[in-house]
Amino acid sequence: MTADAAPAGAGPVGGALPAARTRPLPAGAARLEPSGLLGRWQERNAAATVPHCLGALETSGALDNLRRLLDPADPEHHDGPYRGFNFADSDVHKTLEAVAWESARSGAPRHEDEVRRVVGLLRRVQAPSGYLDSHVLGGAAASAEPYADLRWGHELYVLGHLVQAGVARARATGRDDLLDVATAWADDVVSRLDEGEELVCGHPEVESAFVELYRETGDPAYREAARRMLDLRGYGRLGSGPFEPAYHQDATPVRAADEVAGHAVRQLYLLAGVVDLYLETGEDALLAAAARQWDDAHGRRTHVTGGMGSRHKDESFGDPFELPPDRAYAESCAGVASVLWDWRMLLATGEARYADSLEHALLNVVAAATSTDGTAFFYSNPLQVRTGHDGADEYQASGRRGWFACACCPPNLARLVASLHTMVASRDADDGALAVHLYADADLEDGDGSRVRIRTGYPWDGDVVLTADAPSPVPLALRLPGWADAARTRLEVDGAAVDVAAVLDARGYLRVGAGARRVRLSLPMEPRALAAHPHVDAVRGCVALARGPLVHCLEQVDHGVALEDVTLDLAAGLEVGPADDVLGVGATLVGSGRATSSAGVPLYRAVDGAVEGDAPVAPVDLQVRAVPYAVWGNRGEGPMRVWVPAAASARPGDRGRSGR
Amino acid sequence: MTADAAPAGAGPVGGALPAARTRPLPAGAARLEPSGLLGRWQERNAAATVPHCLGALETSGALDNLRRLLDPADPEHHDGPYRGFNFADSDVHKTLEAVAWESARSGAPRHEDEVRRVVGLLRRVQAPSGYLDSHVLGGAAASAEPYADLRWGHELYVLGHLVQAGVARARATGRDDLLDVATAWADDVVSRLDEGEELVCGHPEVESAFVELYRETGDPAYREAARRMLDLRGYGRLGSGPFEPAYHQDATPVRAADEVAGHAVRQLYLLAGVVDLYLETGEDALLAAAARQWDDAHGRRTHVTGGMGSRHKDESFGDPFELPPDRAYAESCAGVASVLWDWRMLLATGEARYADSLEHALLNVVAAATSTDGTAFFYSNPLQVRTGHDGADEYQASGRRGWFACACCPPNLARLVASLHTMVASRDADDGALAVHLYADADLEDGDGSRVRIRTGYPWDGDVVLTADAPSPVPLALRLPGWADAARTRLEVDGAAVDVAAVLDARGYLRVGAGARRVRLSLPMEPRALAAHPHVDAVRGCVALARGPLVHCLEQVDHGVALEDVTLDLAAGLEVGPADDVLGVGATLVGSGRATSSAGVPLYRAVDGAVEGDAPVAPVDLQVRAVPYAVWGNRGEGPMRVWVPAAASARPGDRGRSGR
Repeated sequence: MTADAAPAGAGPVGGALPAARTRPLPAGAARLEPSGLLGRWQERNAAATVPHCLGALETSGALDNLRRLLDPADPEHHDGPYRGFNFADSDVHKTLEAVAWESARSGAPRHEDEVRRVVGLLRRVQAPSGYLDSHVLGGAAASAEPYADLRWGHELYVLGHLVQAGVARARATGRDDLLDVATAWADDVVSRLDEGEELVCGHPEVESAFVELYRETGDPAYREAARRMLDLRGYGRLGSGPFEPAYHQDATPVRAADEVAGHAVRQLYLLAGVVDLYLETGEDALLAAAARQWDDAHGRRTHVTGGMGSRHKDESFGDPFELPPDRAYAESCAGVASVLWDWRMLLATGEARYADSLEHALLNVVAAATSTDGTAFFYSNPLQVRTGHDGADEYQASGRRGWFACACCPPNLARLVASLHTMVASRDADDGALAVHLYADADLEDGDGSRVRIRTGYPWDGDVVLTADAPSPVPLALRLPGWADAARTRLEVDGAAVDVAAVLDARGYLRVGAGARRVRLSLPMEPRALAAHPHVDAVRGCVALARGPLVHCLEQVDHGVALEDVTLDLAAGLEVGPADDVLGVGATLVGSGRATSSAGVPLYRAVDGAVEGDAPVAPVDLQVRAVPYAVWGNRGEGPMRVWVPAAASARPGDRGRSGR
Repeated sequence: MTADAAPAGAGPVGGALPAARTRPLPAGAARLEPSGLLGRWQERNAAATVPHCLGALETSGALDNLRRLLDPADPEHHDGPYRGFNFADSDVHKTLEAVAWESARSGAPRHEDEVRRVVGLLRRVQAPSGYLDSHVLGGAAASAEPYADLRWGHELYVLGHLVQAGVARARATGRDDLLDVATAWADDVVSRLDEGEELVCGHPEVESAFVELYRETGDPAYREAARRMLDLRGYGRLGSGPFEPAYHQDATPVRAADEVAGHAVRQLYLLAGVVDLYLETGEDALLAAAARQWDDAHGRRTHVTGGMGSRHKDESFGDPFELPPDRAYAESCAGVASVLWDWRMLLATGEARYADSLEHALLNVVAAATSTDGTAFFYSNPLQVRTGHDGADEYQASGRRGWFACACCPPNLARLVASLHTMVASRDADDGALAVHLYADADLEDGDGSRVRIRTGYPWDGDVVLTADAPSPVPLALRLPGWADAARTRLEVDGAAVDVAAVLDARGYLRVGAGARRVRLSLPMEPRALAAHPHVDAVRGCVALARGPLVHCLEQVDHGVALEDVTLDLAAGLEVGPADDVLGVGATLVGSGRATSSAGVPLYRAVDGAVEGDAPVAPVDLQVRAVPYAVWGNRGEGPMRVWVPAAASARPGDRGRSGR
């Protein structure tokens, strides 16, 4: 290890991060309490999701694919055929990473016997070169030669996840066994790159992983390998047909890209890697390109739930403003990847908008991907399910499923949630301020041995109280969420009201000087109706209901008439409804609406003066109930919609500084 | 041949059709004149599209795939690898069918030397069993065994198109050479079915073809084979994963189906076959199922252009009312197939709504698929192209292309257009009335040796004049289009006005008794604004502009501001605009609108009382120009939209009996 290496016990994105404007807290400096939403989520992840993933590695065949390499002829080693997609090994690696972060979080190795068995298995089947992809080694690929199919082979993708698992285990437990397996393979890739092999993976992931490997080992060869792989990309080396180069982010060099394009998860992982390299090198062109693409993604191609990837076909970002609620792909992995990208953008810039986006994706699309019991998952996350929906396709299922033919999402969710506590706060590089990004019941170290406790009912309640054991030796920086109007936000420091506008910095944080003992932030939590940019044709005339960071949705189970027949009366206002213990949410939303039967209305009809014709029958007034999108689909399967047609009779009027 | 066999020279769906309510005219009884739209289309098809397809059979490798079978080692026979999808043979067969109908239309064999060379080639490479699929015979398939992969192999699909080509050539030219090749293969399939082999093709098509083969040969074994293949379907015999049985219409038995489902072209070909069998057997359950599915398709799953198939993913019908304009798949082949289905429904029932639908699909989605010069094609037919559209994918190209990796559409369009004249009119089974379905300059035989001439400027003009050489010996039945208000339609028989309501029959036709010499039908041609059913969320607040049977669209080239910023002022009315000689259309539409810049509007914003916020800048008034959808994309590539946001300020009010 060199002086640059990450300290033992760091979380993801560990290390000195020379170009960062704000840096992750040291190991163990942040803990989420189970009294709050995020802490409970981590507990559920530990108790249910991680064990569920470990079990699925057996039932899905992912571990058998590796065991078979021990001796294909021995039935004890499962000589059935290779099972799953050619990147099934990554399910193993992501689960190992989740276990590692969970060990770090809980302060003790978890599932250690199982992990050691898997690590032992990996070590035994690893080729002498270090190569370790069971799809190729097991003869299931078209070629037995490694890297024969860079476009579809996913080998470097699998390596990337193995590296991240090894790094996580080393940081969490101090054990290098898995890291050694990963570096043996990584070293072979570095050698090949050094010898001029043009290794570009059809599915980006390894770029970010190699930067992490550099951070963990201090060996700049990995950083340079990541740079080389990014430099090689964007010139069509991966070929085309049936997928175009843009699908693999191979149409435009990374520094020249202005827009997100192609397969959403691939694009988002790549961008995380681009910012990872920036954090180590400070090369402005990398951050500038990532920022341009972030503006494009968040200004033109993100669903109101934070979901990304509009198209089922090719799992891709679509055209600008192509954001269909019913056919939103919004893969759970894209939600995870967007959080990873946001976190790196936040570290690189210290700007609140990246934390806003991180929180928004986390509490909406990412949260919705998992059932309330932690053992069932959505692959894609639509914003509407219609009456009559055919949910046979696992990519647009009517309900969550325990596992998938392509099982990328569940362990990806598990590894993210197990490391959530590392994203609550960071330390600003310039003045050492403790910057708080996520409001949740948490205990933070303030950098001087004393602690800051955060207590809040957020996101159900807008009051956030920070209490320091001793006068804080560093300034505090509290994120003012983009949806919160500064004029209606209150801040109190040690009992004295503070002018919010006066302490709001250019990055979007409320700055509190060193020495404070008790800070109370009160965010405005009135329900909001959100409209989309007029170019989002798919939701014209509709609103999405939100409160604080949470987007809400209507579920059929709460309404006695078909959801498709409901129109919201915006002028009647929105109220905060009671908590729902079944769903585990602290509040719901209630509004007024009307139901108009569309029975007998032809598919197309001529209209004279306006689009809305006279209703064929008198509308029926009804109460509309909206629940957080994060918990939809937990009371049986049925229609749901985030975007609700709003009555045209109400008066116009915009408000607020941001839509979300 | 038996007494039931089709008369020499018949068109598609030839033969006695015992269960038909109305029957195709005899061979040569209908001719389209090049003075009219449909006649010109046929001329262009003959002069440009058919030769283009013949040429593409060479350049695409489709003919080489067959030649290679002569002697794979001989370079003269092209020993390169198989090219194209595994059903590339069907491109050859569909082109041969197009040439045949074109020969029938023009009254003389066309491209006869080329056709004989191809027929000779097919005969030489045909296996002794009759089997003739070059993908399997050439060793390009995973198994050399025929029918080893019924789900994906497309072998019976290829056979179906070969049969239809052979039937068409026999009817058009009296030559049985190609029919003999087809029957040799078909006979082997019949034997296999008789021996209990469960032959169900993943891509329906052969069912309709076998009924045609029965009609042409009189041999009931083919009809029974078609019945058997329909009976076998719907029980999951084709297996599942990655596609579900519904994709292949194998989830529900054909007589039990209530909804269209799965891959749209597959579904539509299957339904054509179902009705073909009904026309021969009169089995009510077949027609009842087809009618239920037709109501579902046309009531919940058809774009306003007549396009079918909402999803790019799986090329499938989506959920009810899932009709996105930008991502409409609306494959050209689905348009062709829906016309084939409509024609059979019309023959089975005599009901005008099926002719309405046939004409609507023909003049909108099918017409749009081909460029005005006849040599470039759309694979999918979106109803919107956005600013910034990525048109690299041939399935959502920014412009028409000369050929495709999957080249099903161009020869499919060619074969349909070459036989259009056979759909202009039919003879009713009950009273022998000459029922006129398509208004176009045409000459028809009235069944007694004398002729009826139709002359009209339709679809640009609503006046249609029928003139008989002698007093018509049979009644006439004139379709009253669904979009035409009977109260504003005028009918004049031999100079005397007739009360339209009094002569409108239950099937939707205006009945004129025998003996008439001159009939003038005047249809109301005012522009119409169409709104969609309120469950079609994707076009809420928008209208589509139509006149007569033509749906129109806005093209960027006609507007100085971004199409996405344009709102139509419905209250200001719509006018008929001048003809456009470049596009070859007799009229356009003109309306008033306003353009509102959306610069600076966030992707999502909070609104207080209504969805439409105050415009950030004052809107600019502008003239809106709409051109027929059939000719969009012929003046360079650029944004286009069928559905246009309509100003909310206008007053409500429905009108008309039907939307289209």
